[in-house]
Amino acid sequence: MKHFKWFSVITGVLGLFLFAGTPQLRAQQTVDDVLKARGLTDEDKLAAVKTFMPRGGRDEYFAIVGTGNSGTMIVYGIPSMRIYKYVGVFTPEPWQGYGFDDESSLLLKKSNPDNRIPTYGDMRFPAFSETNGKYDGKYAFFSDGANARIALLGLDDFETKQVLSNTILKSVFPEAAVTPNTEYVIQSGQYPLPWDNKETDLSKAKNGVTFWRVHRIEKEGEHKGRIIKEESFTVEFPAYTLDYNDVGKGASDGLLFGLAFKDGKTYIYALDYKKAETAKKVPTTLSQFVPFDEIKKANAISFIELPAKANMVKVSPDGKYVIVAADEVVVLDVEKIKSNLGKDVKADAVVHKTIPIGKNVIDVTFDYRKNIAYASAHDDKKIVRFDYVKGEKKDEVALDFKPSYLMTPQGLSSEPHSNYLIAVDKEAYIKNLPKTGPVRPSVQHLIDISADDEMTDIYTMTLPQANVYGNVAILRTTIKPIIRYPVGTNSRTGEPSPFRAVAGQEKIERQGNRVHIFGTLIRSHITPEIVVVNEGDIVTFHLTNLERAEDETHGFTIDTYGKHGSFEPGKTASLTFVADKPGVFPYYCTEFCSALHLEMEGILLVRPKGYKGDEGMAVSQELTKEQLEKYKKDYEKKIQVIKETQDVINGVVKYLKDNNYEKYPYVKALVEDAVDQLNKAKFAEENYKKYAKEGKWKDAFLWAEQYWQYQVKAADVGLRAKKLLDEKLGKEE
Amino acid sequence: MKHFKWFSVITGVLGLFLFAGTPQLRAQQTVDDVLKARGLTDEDKLAAVKTFMPRGGRDEYFAIVGTGNSGTMIVYGIPSMRIYKYVGVFTPEPWQGYGFDDESSLLLKKSNPDNRIPTYGDMRFPAFSETNGKYDGKYAFFSDGANARIALLGLDDFETKQVLSNTILKSVFPEAAVTPNTEYVIQSGQYPLPWDNKETDLSKAKNGVTFWRVHRIEKEGEHKGRIIKEESFTVEFPAYTLDYNDVGKGASDGLLFGLAFKDGKTYIYALDYKKAETAKKVPTTLSQFVPFDEIKKANAISFIELPAKANMVKVSPDGKYVIVAADEVVVLDVEKIKSNLGKDVKADAVVHKTIPIGKNVIDVTFDYRKNIAYASAHDDKKIVRFDYVKGEKKDEVALDFKPSYLMTPQGLSSEPHSNYLIAVDKEAYIKNLPKTGPVRPSVQHLIDISADDEMTDIYTMTLPQANVYGNVAILRTTIKPIIRYPVGTNSRTGEPSPFRAVAGQEKIERQGNRVHIFGTLIRSHITPEIVVVNEGDIVTFHLTNLERAEDETHGFTIDTYGKHGSFEPGKTASLTFVADKPGVFPYYCTEFCSALHLEMEGILLVRPKGYKGDEGMAVSQELTKEQLEKYKKDYEKKIQVIKETQDVINGVVKYLKDNNYEKYPYVKALVEDAVDQLNKAKFAEENYKKYAKEGKWKDAFLWAEQYWQYQVKAADVGLRAKKLLDEKLGKEE
Repeated sequence: MKHFKWFSVITGVLGLFLFAGTPQLRAQQTVDDVLKARGLTDEDKLAAVKTFMPRGGRDEYFAIVGTGNSGTMIVYGIPSMRIYKYVGVFTPEPWQGYGFDDESSLLLKKSNPDNRIPTYGDMRFPAFSETNGKYDGKYAFFSDGANARIALLGLDDFETKQVLSNTILKSVFPEAAVTPNTEYVIQSGQYPLPWDNKETDLSKAKNGVTFWRVHRIEKEGEHKGRIIKEESFTVEFPAYTLDYNDVGKGASDGLLFGLAFKDGKTYIYALDYKKAETAKKVPTTLSQFVPFDEIKKANAISFIELPAKANMVKVSPDGKYVIVAADEVVVLDVEKIKSNLGKDVKADAVVHKTIPIGKNVIDVTFDYRKNIAYASAHDDKKIVRFDYVKGEKKDEVALDFKPSYLMTPQGLSSEPHSNYLIAVDKEAYIKNLPKTGPVRPSVQHLIDISADDEMTDIYTMTLPQANVYGNVAILRTTIKPIIRYPVGTNSRTGEPSPFRAVAGQEKIERQGNRVHIFGTLIRSHITPEIVVVNEGDIVTFHLTNLERAEDETHGFTIDTYGKHGSFEPGKTASLTFVADKPGVFPYYCTEFCSALHLEMEGILLVRPKGYKGDEGMAVSQELTKEQLEKYKKDYEKKIQVIKETQDVINGVVKYLKDNNYEKYPYVKALVEDAVDQLNKAKFAEENYKKYAKEGKWKDAFLWAEQYWQYQVKAADVGLRAKKLLDEKLGKEE
Repeated sequence: MKHFKWFSVITGVLGLFLFAGTPQLRAQQTVDDVLKARGLTDEDKLAAVKTFMPRGGRDEYFAIVGTGNSGTMIVYGIPSMRIYKYVGVFTPEPWQGYGFDDESSLLLKKSNPDNRIPTYGDMRFPAFSETNGKYDGKYAFFSDGANARIALLGLDDFETKQVLSNTILKSVFPEAAVTPNTEYVIQSGQYPLPWDNKETDLSKAKNGVTFWRVHRIEKEGEHKGRIIKEESFTVEFPAYTLDYNDVGKGASDGLLFGLAFKDGKTYIYALDYKKAETAKKVPTTLSQFVPFDEIKKANAISFIELPAKANMVKVSPDGKYVIVAADEVVVLDVEKIKSNLGKDVKADAVVHKTIPIGKNVIDVTFDYRKNIAYASAHDDKKIVRFDYVKGEKKDEVALDFKPSYLMTPQGLSSEPHSNYLIAVDKEAYIKNLPKTGPVRPSVQHLIDISADDEMTDIYTMTLPQANVYGNVAILRTTIKPIIRYPVGTNSRTGEPSPFRAVAGQEKIERQGNRVHIFGTLIRSHITPEIVVVNEGDIVTFHLTNLERAEDETHGFTIDTYGKHGSFEPGKTASLTFVADKPGVFPYYCTEFCSALHLEMEGILLVRPKGYKGDEGMAVSQELTKEQLEKYKKDYEKKIQVIKETQDVINGVVKYLKDNNYEKYPYVKALVEDAVDQLNKAKFAEENYKKYAKEGKWKDAFLWAEQYWQYQVKAADVGLRAKKLLDEKLGKEE
């Protein structure tokens, strides 16, 4: 055993250079072989099976975290710690065309006082929307500390729907917090500054906390809730430096607790924001605020002076306690805070317990165990589990890194969940990562907290392009993502786009030097395939992805012309530019959408000024004989595929009927969904038959393709129904 | 067993909603418990231990891949499949300040004919630099298909050093290929276009292949090799659509093989680029090219017509065969190609073997086994191992996805390595991933090819923000990354920055409305801490990170002013802006650099036009009494820490001496390195003592901090030496 450990140190710490020159893993086909060859211990083996995600496996939780200055959101799974998605929030994200198409460019421009697209952010502590204090899986929120902005994302499609500028506070803390029914998203100021832009006298500095009002409009698969700027307000604060805050719930509903610093002293403020809601507000040109005097007058605020510097404040799941992380964890009693509201007091007056945890506690979090919390003692390299009501330490895990921020899934809601704890490791440099130059990514660790008397560090996750502070995580099944948009949707508003086009009705419109192209994308054609404009024209490509198949995204890029978009199934977006460079510019799909992906291309011709050829749309939009022949062949192939798909459907339908599928409600619902899909397809079927009869092979092909997509979706749902039915039958055997 | 599998299907495919409400994993402390609870099979267990990376573990390989339109490079490890880093290449990357500081903005602007920073790319097939056909770990290269650019990255610091615009070809294929000694980076055209920008007549279209000349200038830890545009040239091609190419080596050294399409036919071209090198070239305003006539005249090119459409062409590791992926794999014989060079022939004339593989073969790759290759039969969902000399299939693995591009570590070099194969999975949507809205990330699979008679799909990796085509991977230990720059380095050029500042000599210079700030960053101070300018001033912050500690990066952001940078240890970079908004703007560090991170802040005061207060630098650069007192305290604390660190060093030195460390050469080398660090520190020590004596507490603190950093580095190396010595001693027992 001793020898084995030594071997593990050599392979692990000194790295694999011992193996250099010989490929590792050669034909190790038993677990023991592999453990030995890779220098893994039995503890590693246990950690491996706890985190391994087999093909097709689903994680228990989705976690989100900001990439700091990159301005994007990372979505990853727990316990696999695989990163599933980057989503553009405060900055353009080319992969999804965010900040490139007109719709999302407008969204980002509106977030900036100068009407330009900001290119970086500072986003640290996100929040999920809540209903009755519980995560509801509808929205996520981020605060941009670098540019004083707030963002709302829809979790129906995991896209950014709103980014707004805070027009009162210039310096905000990069945290978003929500009230128990998401009435407000709360964004605190950070550094005290004069509110007047022309004022450079620092003695005029003050601070504030902004309550962004959220209106929720939701139905199945549509999350149209938005922040209403006009109904939002800021509560003025004196010149404290403000930091993290947490919203009360249950016993403390209606209160906000936050960290405040001034003259070397640390305070917890408690603010009754329901009183602020009804207080007299001062309108400004762009927003409104409640003067601090009004808040004082209403006895709506207390500053509680702490005995030492603190790093974090969080409210217990039942709302009865406020836990403050310092060297000692200070537990404040909400009832005592309430009875002192309006007065500035020392912590002694409202304290419930003081619990020594270790040096420099950075963060605390909660799990489903009653009255239990976790604290990270940064300088002592440990995480401590403790009972905050009894004021007792339970157990601790010694780590080989300095833990900073902590997260348990749903730990900030009134329903903490899970046996996992995420600990951010800010100084991972030497021990935990291979060297990739002077700058390293962020690292966080997955800790198994399932045992009541033990905690185990089981996985080290790297987060590239990120400077990680706060995560939040939600049970994966709470989120119900859509997989396609209704055809012709503006994905930023969720509304039908006025610029959508349908198959066979693509067109180019010109008025003077303004050219609108209403085009479509579907495997394997971009329509129109040739666009001719004149140098200096203002050109907009309005493109609609006609696909219904899952994940059948098409990209669209115009070579060397700086224009680019991403089109998910059903999405319509517009790309506007001035055609100021004459010449020939290919446009093409940039996603590998099928084996025929490379055939999705077309040509933009920009005629130079003073061009002497035919005027107007000189290059014929008529198909050449060759093109027509190609479409006819595509059509005939598709008809064959449609026949084969129908055979599959018929087989499934027979099987379902033979086995009395109606007896099983969930199976029945799936079948109804499939039938619904086929009904929608009828219109497409009529069209392709009509156009085929007329010899219009392009239109015939495009409609046959549409029909087939509905058909495939129906077949897909049918097969799922069959599978479920099989399982039901198997269960009954 | 049957029941077990059914259970696995339920948990895996239907997802974990069965467990919703109950946190999973509760106190499963044995491997069998976990397998059962998570629905894992014995195969999953084996796969888990093959890929799990324990804390501190090092991967065998580094792989790089482009994020497609996002324009960044991903670095990940094999077999852990953890993503270690995103590196900005063709687009700005805020995390690293790439495209934000003056140095990298200039680099990106120069890559664009309009002198603006492009914001997206199309980067697919990267390449590593080679020496004698083997990967040497010095550089990586990418081609941008959307904006016709080429990029060179240094693997010393994993940063982009050059991005150049292809001034002849407007449409390029997103692949970079290198010659066996990296004399050239080769970038092929894609769509045939008129070369003249004013030409819109498509019949004038042609194509080409660009040979970018690389000059290599390297020494330990410095990779200063660069592309020399003036010595680069393009070979003109007729109007073929061009695609992937691969460079000959060994038997085929000096030849380039590529895919070409025209009028529905597929060709392999073989080009003798050494003849092109010496052929007559035509200068253009910006570059030079070899006319196709010259190439023909020199018998330097053949077009080999294939019997069917093909997807990929790759040269065998020994250079004797050219493998073409179509439905059948067509193996061409290099000797036969050479003897036909200059003639256009049918494939029959040069074919070695034709091997039926399966439907729609997308890619092939090689491993260390003699004459063995792997092919992905996309439509048949399988990967086939075959002997390309004998023309025999060996074995195959059936997959549950359609494989497209393949990669084996070092498989494109003359020294393929490894028992891993990466297969890109382009249509992963339903089975392999949880739903995250209409668009999903890319997916690729890790296949264990270590057994001679079996291949196993062991891990499904997600690549967020990416549209993955080609990967390349290199033995991790071949790359020797630096962990810090010499203090004051411009990281883009590798040269000392003329704008660097040293501790205690920070200054603000003003000439008219031009203001230069020469500042420093070191825990936990930004110096200067107050900067006063007037509205309309042109301001540059030249900042130097004085840290020597590993991964001690500082960020720098000016709130709401749109300016942002990232400073790795030793880096100097400049941020220039027009101070067009009056007011007070905090600047602060955006990396969690230590527990005192929040104290790294300062204030930019922009006085409004017509300001009537004191002129010039009104806010005193003198420290207030309070600030001075703070610095004194910081200094005293630091002196205590220095003493404690010295005690550690003394202990280690004694231990090493007592145990005759000189007997072990590697230990000895480490000790010498440690002593070297301490010698460097002497200058810092003299300074802090001097300034302390003079009561200049700020300067004293900064120099003490510097001293301590050298000291810590010495202690660190000493401890590593001690550890190694312990192991050596343990070995001898």
